[in-house]
Amino acid sequence: MNILIIYAHPEPKSFNSALKDLAVSELTSLGHQVKVSDLYAMNFKAVTDRDDFQLLQNENFFKYAVEQKHATKTSSFSPDIQEEQDKLLWADFVIFQFPIWWYSVPAILKGWFDRVFASGFIYSRGNRYDTGGLKGRKAMLSATTGSPKGAYTPYGMDGDMNEKILYPINHGMLYFAGFEPVEPFISWAPSHDEEDRKQYLDEYKKRLHNLEEIPSIPYHPTSHYDENHQLKMEYR
Amino acid sequence: MNILIIYAHPEPKSFNSALKDLAVSELTSLGHQVKVSDLYAMNFKAVTDRDDFQLLQNENFFKYAVEQKHATKTSSFSPDIQEEQDKLLWADFVIFQFPIWWYSVPAILKGWFDRVFASGFIYSRGNRYDTGGLKGRKAMLSATTGSPKGAYTPYGMDGDMNEKILYPINHGMLYFAGFEPVEPFISWAPSHDEEDRKQYLDEYKKRLHNLEEIPSIPYHPTSHYDENHQLKMEYR
Repeated sequence: MNILIIYAHPEPKSFNSALKDLAVSELTSLGHQVKVSDLYAMNFKAVTDRDDFQLLQNENFFKYAVEQKHATKTSSFSPDIQEEQDKLLWADFVIFQFPIWWYSVPAILKGWFDRVFASGFIYSRGNRYDTGGLKGRKAMLSATTGSPKGAYTPYGMDGDMNEKILYPINHGMLYFAGFEPVEPFISWAPSHDEEDRKQYLDEYKKRLHNLEEIPSIPYHPTSHYDENHQLKMEYR
Repeated sequence: MNILIIYAHPEPKSFNSALKDLAVSELTSLGHQVKVSDLYAMNFKAVTDRDDFQLLQNENFFKYAVEQKHATKTSSFSPDIQEEQDKLLWADFVIFQFPIWWYSVPAILKGWFDRVFASGFIYSRGNRYDTGGLKGRKAMLSATTGSPKGAYTPYGMDGDMNEKILYPINHGMLYFAGFEPVEPFISWAPSHDEEDRKQYLDEYKKRLHNLEEIPSIPYHPTSHYDENHQLKMEYR
């Protein structure tokens, strides 16, 4: 497979970096083609603005999604955006490696979604979720947390990890874009214990050897919704 | 009251800008003190890195939360972070005005949370949620969406707005920090209809005249959780 790793951590000695490095070496040795977008090393621009486009459809009223659609039609994204979009089209499987900061992705990675997941490229009228622009591809979050696992259970103090915290990412960003998101790999508060780290790396290695067997998150296809975007009775 | 508006939209003619302007004029005319952080106009830095600190505790291993804690103790944040923290301490009520992009806040606003909501300043061991650093203050999201309201119902295609999409923001960012978050003001897909816009502005004006009466979101205080961070049986 062609595998793309989107990696967002500022410290090369971090555990996130170790997970990323392990993925590169294991996946390469298994015969996959691997590319990495190391957002901090690339000094990736996080903030959406007019510089994201080589020409603007409307100079007088800057509406980001309108300009994205226009740039898709006219191939006029800034080169850094175009490059990331090309990598996505090349990839069969995308891994997102990041620390969960403030119950979401770091700003540099949010900016990657804001800028690269463009209207026209990723979605258009009637094309989203299972018919989104990246359909046919799988994606997996590999994230680290600051708190231990127990805080993220359904009755945990920080809120259910899958249903609450990762939902906007897995469903709203990845599934919306056409990806088939698979179950995330979470390293719970790994920084506090070296032995834990080794266990997580061993566990992650196993996961990487069986990428194709990771269960997908069972989201509804758009055909399960009625014309008012409500889940049809028979699927509730 | 002292009211701070954190505003994140790149276009001064946008509907988000109109909502922000309305808040400034109405709240001022009601006798409140109002400050605005216009993140795009300020060219606010979104990405966390070493430049956020005037001196580092550990040059060899950059761990952001460790450096935040150190910077809190030694008053050595970069001036742009310090300024935002000072505004937060000044404020009684904070309004966040932004478009929902990819089911979350724009990257520039995520970066504001990543950088300004610092360990030591906002939270420490045992101080979070109802005992977080900003306790005694209220906060409200005022957000715009791209899709109509029906997509964000509990059985809607895009997921429940309050329980799913805004949960990481209201609970994970605002409540965690000590804020008492009140019900959000959502303008659903306002850009498609001028008449809608006027109705939203009128509605928002009413809301601004009754800020103190907006119901708070009923999250559990930390005392409702046991020593394993699980909600006690009697509160389920």
